[in-house]
Amino acid sequence: MPKKGLLERLAERPVVGDGSQCMTLEKRGYCRAGPWTPEAVLLYPDAVRQLLREYLRAGADVIQTPCFYSSDGKLERTNASSFTAEAINEAACKMAREVANEGDAIVCGSLSPVQAYVNSEGTEATRKEFERQLDVFLKYDVDFMLAEFFGHVEEIELCIDVMKTAKKPIAATLRIGPLGDKNGVSVEECAIRMAKAGADLVGINCLYDFDTCLKTLKRMKTALDKEGLKPYLMCQPLGWRCPEVENEFDGYLTLPEAPLCLEPRTATRVEVHKFARAAYELGTRYIGGCCGMEPHHIRAIAQELAPERKKNPPVNDMCPPLGEMLNLSAFSQIQEKSSKDYWYSVVPGSGRPFNPALSKPVSN
Amino acid sequence: MPKKGLLERLAERPVVGDGSQCMTLEKRGYCRAGPWTPEAVLLYPDAVRQLLREYLRAGADVIQTPCFYSSDGKLERTNASSFTAEAINEAACKMAREVANEGDAIVCGSLSPVQAYVNSEGTEATRKEFERQLDVFLKYDVDFMLAEFFGHVEEIELCIDVMKTAKKPIAATLRIGPLGDKNGVSVEECAIRMAKAGADLVGINCLYDFDTCLKTLKRMKTALDKEGLKPYLMCQPLGWRCPEVENEFDGYLTLPEAPLCLEPRTATRVEVHKFARAAYELGTRYIGGCCGMEPHHIRAIAQELAPERKKNPPVNDMCPPLGEMLNLSAFSQIQEKSSKDYWYSVVPGSGRPFNPALSKPVSN
Amino acid sequence: MPKKGLLERLAERPVVGDGSQCMTLEKRGYCRAGPWTPEAVLLYPDAVRQLLREYLRAGADVIQTPCFYSSDGKLERTNASSFTAEAINEAACKMAREVANEGDAIVCGSLSPVQAYVNSEGTEATRKEFERQLDVFLKYDVDFMLAEFFGHVEEIELCIDVMKTAKKPIAATLRIGPLGDKNGVSVEECAIRMAKAGADLVGINCLYDFDTCLKTLKRMKTALDKEGLKPYLMCQPLGWRCPEVENEFDGYLTLPEAPLCLEPRTATRVEVHKFARAAYELGTRYIGGCCGMEPHHIRAIAQELAPERKKNPPVNDMCPPLGEMLNLSAFSQIQEKSSKDYWYSVVPGSGRPFNPALSKPVSN
Amino acid sequence: MPKKGLLERLAERPVVGDGSQCMTLEKRGYCRAGPWTPEAVLLYPDAVRQLLREYLRAGADVIQTPCFYSSDGKLERTNASSFTAEAINEAACKMAREVANEGDAIVCGSLSPVQAYVNSEGTEATRKEFERQLDVFLKYDVDFMLAEFFGHVEEIELCIDVMKTAKKPIAATLRIGPLGDKNGVSVEECAIRMAKAGADLVGINCLYDFDTCLKTLKRMKTALDKEGLKPYLMCQPLGWRCPEVENEFDGYLTLPEAPLCLEPRTATRVEVHKFARAAYELGTRYIGGCCGMEPHHIRAIAQELAPERKKNPPVNDMCPPLGEMLNLSAFSQIQEKSSKDYWYSVVPGSGRPFNPALSKPVSN
Repeated sequence: MPKKGLLERLAERPVVGDGSQCMTLEKRGYCRAGPWTPEAVLLYPDAVRQLLREYLRAGADVIQTPCFYSSDGKLERTNASSFTAEAINEAACKMAREVANEGDAIVCGSLSPVQAYVNSEGTEATRKEFERQLDVFLKYDVDFMLAEFFGHVEEIELCIDVMKTAKKPIAATLRIGPLGDKNGVSVEECAIRMAKAGADLVGINCLYDFDTCLKTLKRMKTALDKEGLKPYLMCQPLGWRCPEVENEFDGYLTLPEAPLCLEPRTATRVEVHKFARAAYELGTRYIGGCCGMEPHHIRAIAQELAPERKKNPPVNDMCPPLGEMLNLSAFSQIQEKSSKDYWYSVVPGSGRPFNPALSKPVSN
Repeated sequence: MPKKGLLERLAERPVVGDGSQCMTLEKRGYCRAGPWTPEAVLLYPDAVRQLLREYLRAGADVIQTPCFYSSDGKLERTNASSFTAEAINEAACKMAREVANEGDAIVCGSLSPVQAYVNSEGTEATRKEFERQLDVFLKYDVDFMLAEFFGHVEEIELCIDVMKTAKKPIAATLRIGPLGDKNGVSVEECAIRMAKAGADLVGINCLYDFDTCLKTLKRMKTALDKEGLKPYLMCQPLGWRCPEVENEFDGYLTLPEAPLCLEPRTATRVEVHKFARAAYELGTRYIGGCCGMEPHHIRAIAQELAPERKKNPPVNDMCPPLGEMLNLSAFSQIQEKSSKDYWYSVVPGSGRPFNPALSKPVSN
Repeated sequence: MPKKGLLERLAERPVVGDGSQCMTLEKRGYCRAGPWTPEAVLLYPDAVRQLLREYLRAGADVIQTPCFYSSDGKLERTNASSFTAEAINEAACKMAREVANEGDAIVCGSLSPVQAYVNSEGTEATRKEFERQLDVFLKYDVDFMLAEFFGHVEEIELCIDVMKTAKKPIAATLRIGPLGDKNGVSVEECAIRMAKAGADLVGINCLYDFDTCLKTLKRMKTALDKEGLKPYLMCQPLGWRCPEVENEFDGYLTLPEAPLCLEPRTATRVEVHKFARAAYELGTRYIGGCCGMEPHHIRAIAQELAPERKKNPPVNDMCPPLGEMLNLSAFSQIQEKSSKDYWYSVVPGSGRPFNPALSKPVSN
Repeated sequence: MPKKGLLERLAERPVVGDGSQCMTLEKRGYCRAGPWTPEAVLLYPDAVRQLLREYLRAGADVIQTPCFYSSDGKLERTNASSFTAEAINEAACKMAREVANEGDAIVCGSLSPVQAYVNSEGTEATRKEFERQLDVFLKYDVDFMLAEFFGHVEEIELCIDVMKTAKKPIAATLRIGPLGDKNGVSVEECAIRMAKAGADLVGINCLYDFDTCLKTLKRMKTALDKEGLKPYLMCQPLGWRCPEVENEFDGYLTLPEAPLCLEPRTATRVEVHKFARAAYELGTRYIGGCCGMEPHHIRAIAQELAPERKKNPPVNDMCPPLGEMLNLSAFSQIQEKSSKDYWYSVVPGSGRPFNPALSKPVSN
């Protein structure tokens, strides 16, 4: 029996995306902080495969090909030119399919912003670059495509238009916050334009935290409803809390702590449960994670939405939600924490009384 | 050429231990929160092996057998009795050796406190339990043994005495803080008694954070020096900041956030660099991590002590210390962060202005 | 030689207002928390006079009559009906003049929102109430009038219109933040309408902290400039920090801590120096304080603006700015703090690691 | 009917002391930060008298003469030599008596550490200086004497011995924390030696906050009980929270924020209620305040202990405890706060998410 495709799944129940790749692999020792290029898929395939499997096990419906931002230009500029983008991308497509097939997941190929647009080389050059990105995904027959991390709605419109040629479902997410896109297009207009361009799913990814994303999504939803547009809403936010960057175009990248000292901002699983519920209630139907969202975070999304999804994630065999097995602890004070109520009432401290709660963003 | 043993290594340079097993595997989906039993070594060996490899790659000299706290009693009490402790322990010993042999590491078998002592069943019964724990390690010929997570110096003395029969190096670490052991024996006396009992290394592990451990270690060092005792000093602290539990016998377990909402307390790698340096300067010669210390934390220890160790960890190929490759970032504000000075000056925020810095510990 | 009036002063230099009355008197034991009625002016005149003198000494150009919010209705409703509003108001006018004449200050009579407007009794009834408020100020010949703490621009327009009959300078301040007035009129339009109605000074008072007020004032200034309107800009903010209530119509009143546990939010004098400078640079020319702004805060305004005002406040004989006399301390670590640079670099802590930085506002 | 003396009062009920003088007068504009000399008693007697009255009204049993640390040497060194210590001290004694007689309070003369001791000029020179301090208090017949702010128990013993000649009750408070006195005498021994020297009351004042004082007092109490000594226990702590200076000999003076940016650390009245209750339950029978304890704080002590004292403070006419009249507020969300339960549940925020909770102390 063939697997259900993305749109079939969405028609039935909320879809869970996967999580952070580069930044989690960096902590494990398999990605370079700075370049963030995905050569580990060739160098250390076991390590990358293991991470993908963790997302599968956490309940992800989707495995994204682990080749984010790999282009020959990028590889060369960051001293990784002994790898070709082609070799990386092919390995990534194969590995994603392989892991997806270990369970009930489908494969997503992700397209990123291109140099031709940044350099104002014109529509044709820009489309060409997108076509090159698309080629490998078509060759390896991914299940759908996602244009993500775009800062300009104009550029993502072009990308959507290129993707349409593939006759597969199209998702499109901007990296924007309340300020709208980098050309000054409002959040509302961005949503409308992505939908009108032909995206089946529209939304946001990266750069902002749960609360900021929810605010932005709400405005998108209201605007789409007003226009009578009905794309699915999608969100893949950061796994760190950073309310103070809400009004920075570069979001969390403006934090002094980015990218190496973000640990204290890491979301707890309870915060993820609350976010997933709020996102769902707002109408979001594809909920995954971007940088900082690790396997236990994705698991929290799948567990929170288990009633709506009518299934638990595979990980439930060892990791049921919200400490259900804490009653088996050897410590009596831990045994008593075996309930959702307990965890929803905890207000976690940072353990750092000499540090502030927030940092002054450093704008470019 | 045979590998150097623990004592040979220590004679030459500081030794780096490995990090968190159960709690990190739980986040990845392979350990039960509450029971914390290591059945994944049988169920999901690839996942466990991957974690051990990450510690190897991070620079660990030592791979501990991934079978912490597995005894038939424990497995039964926590509904994992389809696994025998024997099967788990054997698999763990084999896997540890296998991974250690992928690099320059040696294997450590870890002994834990026993029920016979808790239940006051007497010296003989207690020794018997330790002997049972020891058997598998002797069968698989670990390179040295570590008695760890003991709350009573009297019990660890017995354990040390049993371990002596094996004619291998012996390390002994208590889970104590400034209050001393649970029978009221002072930190100073604990250190002296462990050394006199025959431990080659003495120190502390788990339950407390960097600063509290350093305070306690300093008192141990002073007392040992005064007595003319010269064991190596060892420390495997938590990867979370929790100064407020310093005077709780159960350390971080008394935090309302333990064990599922500790993320905001996670150490940054810069905090680990500073800790490793301070521990080394204090005279500590075996520095690893306990719960919460993940691969990038262990890497920070190995990188901080690279000059003294005269070598970099294997991970340096992709992850040089303190953001050395951030100059290759696509974002100009990140490029400027490519220096130790920058990272040492960052005071990370929690991103949670509605949360406190500290929590009231909940004593038993 | 007669004193210069408000507009003459403003033509020459920035004017400093006085500070908190009711809430400071409450801490001293002379005002009821809840009713906040000013019967102390009759019951404990020495205590009230002392506070006014402290503002005079701190450098205030203006002494407001200490009869805020006293009307027979209010006095009756709060069980203070043994005092008539008339008796209180007359005593307040006399006392303000008396203290003002001890130095170079002038007297301001303050008009507040009225019941007739709240109850929608119509324009005539509303004007009548304002006229009653105005009577006593005309009888005692205050130097100018201030309509303050209004939440609706429509009501303050009526008040301004009534005040015009007095042929004295008119100031008008709304208690609004970024959301604009309670009828949904934008900050920008509020400013324009107050100016067009005939106010010589327009601005904001109470409910929000320094940063929120500065944001709102900036928007007012931009709008007024665009319209070619040139009223003086005025600001009398809170003496507490409360960024989290920026989007609450009732401002700091929505804090769980209001009104009895606001101490940790109290502004430092350094924060006041920075605020006064920013307000001045933005174009504000009347800068005083509302609830929580105590004598040492008003002093900090006058000292910050001493160069522009070409004079120091009287208090300089004992209290020069920013710790100039700390070099005379008996403690060497204090002696070294005798400089502006030192104080500008201090980032004060709350001393409460178990408390959050911010509180969830409680909207009505 | 003559007033009851200190010991008679203590025999019946807990005694409430007064609060901060210099540092509160500085905020009002009548004391020099740095010198902290009390020349305002001559220059601005109304302002000083008003503060003393506020303490009387707040429920203080005791008015301390407002001449702390005035000696000719100190006045000269701090450029206030146009005032003689004699003139200041006489005016202070008269004013304290005058205010005390407006209610039911008694007068306390306070003796401070002397130069002769600091300079090691010997016992006789030290006694002489204490005698000079004592003279004016005998001339104006204060009701009892208090030796306060001593850092060495040896010096306070000498002072107590000199005070004994006056045949009046003697109180003695050290400025110490958990570390004991500056010569290394333990907290326990300090308490015993003060009691044995002849002090009727012993305890601590200044330098530390409520929690640190309570810890120290508890150790004093235990030690005194063990020795069978029965002096009354006394405490006049800071009005600021500063747990981080607990192990600094100079207490809050080592804070970067001292003395001009301490506002965020100011105790709330609820914190004072809780402190007063804890101090009383520990056995403390004289509870007042030192630097930072303002009239509303002293009021909170008197109101908390009203049941034990069988009377309310005079201020109750306008300021009943814990917001009893908030039900008369015009704002519904404030009306609901008219209960002790409400206020005991509030955890106040600092309003400063970019600031830390604690500061690194700067030791000398």
